[in-house]
Amino acid sequence: SRQKKADFSNRGMTLEEDINQTNQAYLREGKAVIHKKPTPVQIVDVDFPKRSAAVIREAYFKQASTTDYNGIYKGSYIDFEAKETKNKTSFPLSNIHDHQVQHMKQIVEHGGICFILIRFSLLEETFFFAAEKLFPYWERQTKGGRKSIPYKDIQQEGHFIPFKFHIRVDYLSVIDEMYL
Amino acid sequence: SRQKKADFSNRGMTLEEDINQTNQAYLREGKAVIHKKPTPVQIVDVDFPKRSAAVIREAYFKQASTTDYNGIYKGSYIDFEAKETKNKTSFPLSNIHDHQVQHMKQIVEHGGICFILIRFSLLEETFFFAAEKLFPYWERQTKGGRKSIPYKDIQQEGHFIPFKFHIRVDYLSVIDEMYL
Ligand SMILES: [Mg+2]
Ligand SMILES: [Mg+2]
Repeated sequence: SRQKKADFSNRGMTLEEDINQTNQAYLREGKAVIHKKPTPVQIVDVDFPKRSAAVIREAYFKQASTTDYNGIYKGSYIDFEAKETKNKTSFPLSNIHDHQVQHMKQIVEHGGICFILIRFSLLEETFFFAAEKLFPYWERQTKGGRKSIPYKDIQQEGHFIPFKFHIRVDYLSVIDEMYL
Repeated sequence: SRQKKADFSNRGMTLEEDINQTNQAYLREGKAVIHKKPTPVQIVDVDFPKRSAAVIREAYFKQASTTDYNGIYKGSYIDFEAKETKNKTSFPLSNIHDHQVQHMKQIVEHGGICFILIRFSLLEETFFFAAEKLFPYWERQTKGGRKSIPYKDIQQEGHFIPFKFHIRVDYLSVIDEMYL
């Protein structure tokens, strides 16, 4: 329907697109320098045609060994992962890989600000969830416990990020409130 | 010759490999969390064969919009680019792109520690060169000035990084000395 379409264009497409738009706005305004890392790819075969650019002819997606975004804000190191789920009642931990959690622990140990942005896409809600809050759920899972974080816990322990037109996922406002 | 071969294996292959080995050592020792960003690739065509992994069938190398390495050390944001040259008397500025320099300026403005590691591969010498030292050379070049940094200037304004077996390019020791 027309209404739905209008909504959709206001709210942005994917979480990743919204974050990229947000990071561009932060950069333009001189607020922070935060970029998405390129998708890791294992390149196997490259063609070098005469008089034109090299063409990658065989390559495979590699699992990321770190998180997707990092950068600097007010002199602090920022590091985060963004995840979307269609689930309405919980966030499945299968969305995250063990080496990503290990990376997040290292960042926290070194004094960085580390978190995940979780979007419940069907609820159209995005939350800031600190890495320190994630770790206990992760440990519990590896010991045979619950394999997801209940939506209610994310609501309580995380921070709801309201949708804004100009800066779609204003996660730095949560950092200002929580850390700085 | 045998001597040459032995030397080569001690000194490592490329600057990038030496830095990766160095970063792994830093990570293992809990000293710093610094990673190379994946090579940026523009993916055009992907095959999804049944019962096996997706294969990228057409992709192109994209120009990096930032630097190659970033991370955190002693709570500080670290950001750098690594460049090798076969030149013996100067470092050609054509090795660096304008948007990388703009990125470096943004990092410095936000309080990050930003630099380039320059290796003169035929001299087997690696230098730490602070971004703040690079900027005047860059400006001069854009105004029609010299298109390279003389080796002597890099020696004087930069910091020589001695080759070590255990940590091949120990750039954090320069940061300790200069910034922290
Ligand atoms: Mg990811
Ligand atoms: Mg590069």
